[in-house]
Amino acid sequence: MQLIKAGTLQPGVPLPSSRDMATLMKLNRTTVVAAYDELRIQGWIEAIARKGFAISGKLPVLHPQSFHAHQHSPVKAADTPGFYKIISHEAPVQMQRKVYDLVVGDGYPDARIAPLQLLINKYRALQNRHYKHMAVINELPAGSALLRSELATFLSQTRGLNIAADNILLSRGAQAAIYLAAQMIVKPGSRVIVGVLNYSKANKVFEQLGATLVKVNMDENGIDVDRIEEICKTDPPNLLYIIPHHHHPTTVTLSPERRIKLLNIIRTYRLPVIEDDYDYDFHYENSPILPLASADHDGLVLYIGSITKMLSLTIRCGFLVAGTDLIWQAGKLKELMELRSDLLMEDAIGYLFKTGEMQRHIARSVKLYKARRDTFCNMLESRLSHILRFTNPPGGMAVWALFNPEFSLPVISKALASQGIYLNDGSLYNQGNAAVNGVRLGFAAMNEEEMEIFVLKVAECTSKISGAANM
Amino acid sequence: MQLIKAGTLQPGVPLPSSRDMATLMKLNRTTVVAAYDELRIQGWIEAIARKGFAISGKLPVLHPQSFHAHQHSPVKAADTPGFYKIISHEAPVQMQRKVYDLVVGDGYPDARIAPLQLLINKYRALQNRHYKHMAVINELPAGSALLRSELATFLSQTRGLNIAADNILLSRGAQAAIYLAAQMIVKPGSRVIVGVLNYSKANKVFEQLGATLVKVNMDENGIDVDRIEEICKTDPPNLLYIIPHHHHPTTVTLSPERRIKLLNIIRTYRLPVIEDDYDYDFHYENSPILPLASADHDGLVLYIGSITKMLSLTIRCGFLVAGTDLIWQAGKLKELMELRSDLLMEDAIGYLFKTGEMQRHIARSVKLYKARRDTFCNMLESRLSHILRFTNPPGGMAVWALFNPEFSLPVISKALASQGIYLNDGSLYNQGNAAVNGVRLGFAAMNEEEMEIFVLKVAECTSKISGAANM
Repeated sequence: MQLIKAGTLQPGVPLPSSRDMATLMKLNRTTVVAAYDELRIQGWIEAIARKGFAISGKLPVLHPQSFHAHQHSPVKAADTPGFYKIISHEAPVQMQRKVYDLVVGDGYPDARIAPLQLLINKYRALQNRHYKHMAVINELPAGSALLRSELATFLSQTRGLNIAADNILLSRGAQAAIYLAAQMIVKPGSRVIVGVLNYSKANKVFEQLGATLVKVNMDENGIDVDRIEEICKTDPPNLLYIIPHHHHPTTVTLSPERRIKLLNIIRTYRLPVIEDDYDYDFHYENSPILPLASADHDGLVLYIGSITKMLSLTIRCGFLVAGTDLIWQAGKLKELMELRSDLLMEDAIGYLFKTGEMQRHIARSVKLYKARRDTFCNMLESRLSHILRFTNPPGGMAVWALFNPEFSLPVISKALASQGIYLNDGSLYNQGNAAVNGVRLGFAAMNEEEMEIFVLKVAECTSKISGAANM
Repeated sequence: MQLIKAGTLQPGVPLPSSRDMATLMKLNRTTVVAAYDELRIQGWIEAIARKGFAISGKLPVLHPQSFHAHQHSPVKAADTPGFYKIISHEAPVQMQRKVYDLVVGDGYPDARIAPLQLLINKYRALQNRHYKHMAVINELPAGSALLRSELATFLSQTRGLNIAADNILLSRGAQAAIYLAAQMIVKPGSRVIVGVLNYSKANKVFEQLGATLVKVNMDENGIDVDRIEEICKTDPPNLLYIIPHHHHPTTVTLSPERRIKLLNIIRTYRLPVIEDDYDYDFHYENSPILPLASADHDGLVLYIGSITKMLSLTIRCGFLVAGTDLIWQAGKLKELMELRSDLLMEDAIGYLFKTGEMQRHIARSVKLYKARRDTFCNMLESRLSHILRFTNPPGGMAVWALFNPEFSLPVISKALASQGIYLNDGSLYNQGNAAVNGVRLGFAAMNEEEMEIFVLKVAECTSKISGAANM
C-alpha cells in the first residue's frame, strides 16, 4: 500500500497472481489471498476479469510523507501560513518531565499529609460498585451531585455562603473555574480590572479571550477601591477580578473597610466580579474575612475556590459558585469543553467531606502550615534578610519574597536547579512593564529539613554571587 | 458581625464591657475578650480610650443578604441585566444524578471489562512513590511525558503516524481536544465545514467560538468531497471537521477514493482540518483505513483520538496530534484552561500501554464488541425491523437507528425511562432544521442479557403506541 501511495506502483499495473506472489514473498498463499482481499476491500486494488488483481485506476497518485516535527511544523515550513493562534511567544522547550529533589512551588499543599490513600481506595471501590450495578451516570455538566451538595454545606459553614448544590459547578481546579467564568463574561474588547501585581495566569486568560486589562494599584490593604469607583464612573468596566485573601503573588488581604466599600461599588455600578478565593481555608491569624460572595451583591459575584489546594496538585478539583441560572449556562459551556468529568473521583472527594475526613484534614493542615510558616519566616529573617525582603503572610502557603537587585532571580534559580532544587526564576511574576525581582516561596509543602536545605543552598549560591560582585 | 452588617448595630454604638457581655451571653470572659479582639482585628469594632469597644464608625451600613437561588438569579431578577453569555436555550433542569438499571448510551465502552483495578492500583502506587521522593512535577502543559511517548509508539504502529512525544498533547477526553483544537483555529466569523448530520457537540463548539457552519451532505461513502472543493474555490473556509471512521451519528466511513481526493484538496487549498478519529481502534471488518493525518498534509491536519473510549467514561483522557509548534502553543492554551492535568493518572495509563496491557485489552474488546454488534444487529433485524431501520456498522460502539415516524423517540424514551432504561430521545441528533427520528444504540457496553431486556422493552412500549394508533 505504501508503494501505491508512493507512486512506485502506478494505477492499472497488474499484480502477480496470488500463487506467484506467495512464492515470491515466501508466504502461505492463503495469506496473500487475504492480503489482496484486504487491499480490494479498502479500494487500493481492483479485480480484473480472469486477470486477478491490478492497482486501482481510481486512485490519484500521492507522495509519501512523514510526520516528522521539522517537516511537520506549520510555523517553520515557509510554504505554510500559520493557520492557528499564537498563544505565547515563549521559545518552545522540550516538554519533558523534570524531577527535582526539592521543589519550592509558589504555594503547593503537602500531598504527603493528605488522605490520598483513603481517597483512592474509595475511588476504586466506587469503580467496582458503580459498574456492577450499571448505575451509569446521566449527563451531569455541573459535576458530582454528592460533592456539590457536600460543598454547599461546607461553604455555608466556612464562608457564610447561603447556597444549594445547584449554585455550584465543579471544575478541574481553580484555574479551570477562572477560565470558565471568564468565558461566561469576557468578550473581545471587554475591559477587566485587575490589581498590580496580579496572578499572571488570570491576566493571560482575560487577554486570551480578547479583553483589555485595566490595572489598579494595590497596597497593604489590598486593591485601591476608590480608583475602581473612578473607573466605574468614567468608563464602566465589564469585570473585576479580585483575590480577597492572600492575594497572588503578594499575599495582601483586602481590608474589611475596603471590602464593604467595594460591595457598595459592585451594587451601585452593577460590576460583575470574579472572586478568586483559592486560599480561604488556610488562614492563620484571626478567622478570615467573609468573601464578597457572602454579602449582598445581586448575583454579580462569581465565587471560585480550590479543592486541589486542600489535597494535592494532582487531584484536580475546584468549584464555581454563582446564581443557578449562570451555573446552568456555565455547565452547558463546560459540557462543550470536556463533555463530562471523572464523576467517580468527584464522588470520592464528596465522601471525604461527608465523613468529615476533609474537614479534619484541613484543620490538621492549618495547624501544620502555620507552624511551618513561622519556622520558615524565622529562617528567612535570621539567615537571608541580607538578600531579600518579605512580609509574614496572614495565611496561604507561600511567602512573597523580593530579592535585592544584586541577587538576580534567574541566576539564583539556575544555580539552585544545578543542585536539584526548583525555584521559579521570577518570570512567573513579571507582568509586562512591571518587572520585579520577586518570587513566591511555598513553605506549606516543605518540612523543616527541606527548609534547612533550601535556605542553606540559597545562602551558598548568593554568597558566590556577591563574592563575584566584590571581585 | 451579622448585626453590624444588618445595620441593627449602628456605627459608634458602644459595646457592653467584656465582663457584662460574658454574663449576658453566659460565656467565659476570656472567650468574649477573644471575640472582641477578633472583631477589632477585622475592623468591625474599634477600641475607645477607657470606654472599651464600640462599633467602628468607618463602616458604611449594609443590608443583610441571602444567596438563595431565587434571589440570586441574575436573569430572573428584573433589576439585574444578564451580564453573562447564554450558552444554551434549553430549560434548566435540576442537575441531579439519575441512576438507571440500564443505560443505552450513544456508544460507550464496557467499563466492566476494562483493567481499571490495575490502573487504579498503579495510580495509588504512583501517589505514594511520587511524594516519598518529592519527585514533584514541573510544568507539563502537554501532559504526562510517559503516556505521550507510549502513545507516539502506539499511534505509529496502529495508524501509520510517524510522530514523536512532542507531537502529542493530552486532554480530558476527545471532546476537550476538539474544544482546544477549535480554539486554536476558529475566530468569530470563521467558516467551518461540517457534514450533515454531524456530531452535534462539535457543531456547538464551533458556533460557541463564533463560527458559521458550512454544511455538506454525506452519503454511504462519507462526506461529499467534490462539494468541499467547490466551497474551497468559491469561498475558502477556515476549517474542516471530519470523522473518517464510523461518523457520528451515522457510522458512515469515508471511502479510500474520497479520502485521497480530500488529501489533495487539503494540500491544494491549504485547508486546516480537525480529524476526529475517536473510534479508530474499534473496527471489525477489514483493518481500518489509515487516517488523513498519516498522509501528506503539510501539517494542516489536527488529529484527535480518545483513550476514554478504550477504558471507561469516567477515565477522562484523549489526545491531540499535530506539528510540534502547534502542540506547544496548544499546551500554552491548555495551561490557561486548567493549569495542569492529573499527571499521575496519565502516568498510570502510560504504564498500561508500556506493559502491553492496554493493547491486549483493546484486542479483547474488539473481539467482544464485534460479537456484541452481530448479536445486537440480529436482534434488531429479527424483532424490531418493523419499528426501525439501521445499517450494520463496520466498527465503533453504536448502531445508528432511524425509527419509523409513527414511533416518536421522545415517547419511546419516556416510556423506557419509566422502566429504568435510559435512551436518548433523539434531541442529541436533531440539528436545527435537520430533525430526525433517529438515535444511536450503543451495543458495546451491553451484554446479551441486557440487549434482550432492551429489545423486549422497546417492542413492548412500541406495541402500545401502535395499539393506541389503531384505536
